Amino acid sequence: MFSFTLEHQEAHSGARLGLIRTAHGEIRTPVFMPVGTQGTVKALTPEDLVSLEVQVILANTYHLYLRPGHDRIRRLGGLHRFMHWDRPILTDSGGYQVFSLGALRKITPAGVSFQSHLDGSRHFLTPELALEIQTALGSDMAMCLDECPPYPATYEYVRSSLELTRQWAERCRQARGENGPALFGIVQGGVFPDLRRAGAEALMEIGFDGYALGGLSVGEPPAERLETITRSLPLLPADRPRYLMGLGTPEDLVEGVEQGADMFDCVLPTRNARNGMLFTRQGAVIIKNAAYAEDPGPIDPECGCYTCRHYSRAYLRHLYLAKELLSYRLHTWHNLYYFMELMQEIRQAVVHDRFREFKIAFYRKRKESS
Amino acid sequence: MFSFTLEHQEAHSGARLGLIRTAHGEIRTPVFMPVGTQGTVKALTPEDLVSLEVQVILANTYHLYLRPGHDRIRRLGGLHRFMHWDRPILTDSGGYQVFSLGALRKITPAGVSFQSHLDGSRHFLTPELALEIQTALGSDMAMCLDECPPYPATYEYVRSSLELTRQWAERCRQARGENGPALFGIVQGGVFPDLRRAGAEALMEIGFDGYALGGLSVGEPPAERLETITRSLPLLPADRPRYLMGLGTPEDLVEGVEQGADMFDCVLPTRNARNGMLFTRQGAVIIKNAAYAEDPGPIDPECGCYTCRHYSRAYLRHLYLAKELLSYRLHTWHNLYYFMELMQEIRQAVVHDRFREFKIAFYRKRKESS
Repeated sequence: MFSFTLEHQEAHSGARLGLIRTAHGEIRTPVFMPVGTQGTVKALTPEDLVSLEVQVILANTYHLYLRPGHDRIRRLGGLHRFMHWDRPILTDSGGYQVFSLGALRKITPAGVSFQSHLDGSRHFLTPELALEIQTALGSDMAMCLDECPPYPATYEYVRSSLELTRQWAERCRQARGENGPALFGIVQGGVFPDLRRAGAEALMEIGFDGYALGGLSVGEPPAERLETITRSLPLLPADRPRYLMGLGTPEDLVEGVEQGADMFDCVLPTRNARNGMLFTRQGAVIIKNAAYAEDPGPIDPECGCYTCRHYSRAYLRHLYLAKELLSYRLHTWHNLYYFMELMQEIRQAVVHDRFREFKIAFYRKRKESS
Repeated sequence: MFSFTLEHQEAHSGARLGLIRTAHGEIRTPVFMPVGTQGTVKALTPEDLVSLEVQVILANTYHLYLRPGHDRIRRLGGLHRFMHWDRPILTDSGGYQVFSLGALRKITPAGVSFQSHLDGSRHFLTPELALEIQTALGSDMAMCLDECPPYPATYEYVRSSLELTRQWAERCRQARGENGPALFGIVQGGVFPDLRRAGAEALMEIGFDGYALGGLSVGEPPAERLETITRSLPLLPADRPRYLMGLGTPEDLVEGVEQGADMFDCVLPTRNARNGMLFTRQGAVIIKNAAYAEDPGPIDPECGCYTCRHYSRAYLRHLYLAKELLSYRLHTWHNLYYFMELMQEIRQAVVHDRFREFKIAFYRKRKESS
């Protein structure tokens, strides 16, 4: 069970509101999906995520395939039950991690062979296996296996990679069958506008439940990234969810929504939390700074999160320097609260056709305090 | 403000019920105090501790003195405020950690000089400084600085160490003054019955709000430890809380209560949790065992804790092997729940003069399953 309803489209920007329905509940878009790589959003419980109004999380196929194994998770009742999370889960295809974490990768038309980063064991990931894993996990939204070309890459390389991605998408569509998870195609094409267009058209011809822009934030200059997003998002069908993969600075979210993106995921809020980098409306707080050693104030005086209501910067700095486990939890809570609230404010702005005003205020606040 | 009321004494065992009153609330004894070394019980929030019905925690003077510093904590409003915990706190004197963690220790009658385990800086801990630090932290119950002799140690060594501990106790009592925290004396004396007796009598002559047995679990054989506890606890005044320091297997708690101990602290439940060793009524569960790889059951089918209600052994094993932060939190929750419930059951048994029956059932259950 899967559907997408476009509920509102702003007249003067690409920003829009949508409703995704899945067997595990509804998702109001635009939405940010925290990353739960190994069947847990690091340091938080599912109850914490519900308190934070997280609507959907992303789980990583590559990690769960290697450990504890998708067959094991299937036998234990699927990933939702395994990790005690009953809201929607989107799974990636595993491809991106094979390219970024696996060793001795070798790509052939049949699939990609690689060595596990955990134990060096050899594996062969095909489009069909990617679907099999995601189905075994009980994913609500699965992604097609794709090849994500590096940056920079030649036009020739990206063009032939795009053809491989198209063939794999077709095989994933086949492999999904009638009772599998909702399936998203991934538009590649690097920073070449005509390849992005060709990629989008090829996927639309196959037909998917949703469409993603992939291969961004792989080293390309920010201006080329924004240019690619701005040109590519409008190519995707308006009546399907559009997912901007792996992008997640607050600015990325604001710019992406403006161009019509509905879904985002990124490790940034959770990973930066663990590294002591905290998001606020005024910009980043680096908690280890000596200036905070006796600061009795919260991370962000304007924030209403659990961490900001109860803990001083001085205490958080102490926990961070002492490498205390509570540090990761309190920081992750704060950063996800910031991201969830940002998306809530964005949705509110779009309801009232005031996204442009929202965006101006968003940037003004940062400028004032920098 | 501090008082102790002995509310019930069993006729046929040393087990007793008491009520400690502090400025931060009441404590029903016998009580187990989780250890919050650096101003946090590792992986848990104060709200978690309240959910677990933790009545009082122990904080380590040595650690907080070195980082972030007691003066800093005092300027930030004291340890309760710093760490967002409004129930009672007992602080140790710092002596034990100086001996176990500090380097280049040198003991003189004036105090003990040592090098920080963090940065090698040199420090000199005196009885007066130990009280000053604990007072700055805002401790509800402070401990006298003592010397904890190693095991084995000669009678002569322990005897002269005991005299030093007596002198330091006198200076701590002086340094406390009229408005300081409640102060506990620590009975040393190794495994020598006459020295334990002399130590207890010397402290009672000075007069303290509570009395602790120290210097146990430092390498002595379990039989000698139990013998020392059994002989020494009855020497302490019945109208003051009796604190059995640093002991904390479930068996230690049961045996200690039987001999009349009111207070316990130990890193065991929290440290073992982080190492994947989980307490159950039937004995220990070592979560990494391959046998649990697809086990859909909880750690302990008889346990009602959050972790056991929602997570399988298979999932907990996965989190543990993947070194996921949530692992430490879920395990710590379970182990502290077990310890808190054990103490609750002990108090219930003593109310009904049924401690002996409780103890028999406690050991029978373990025997049956081993």
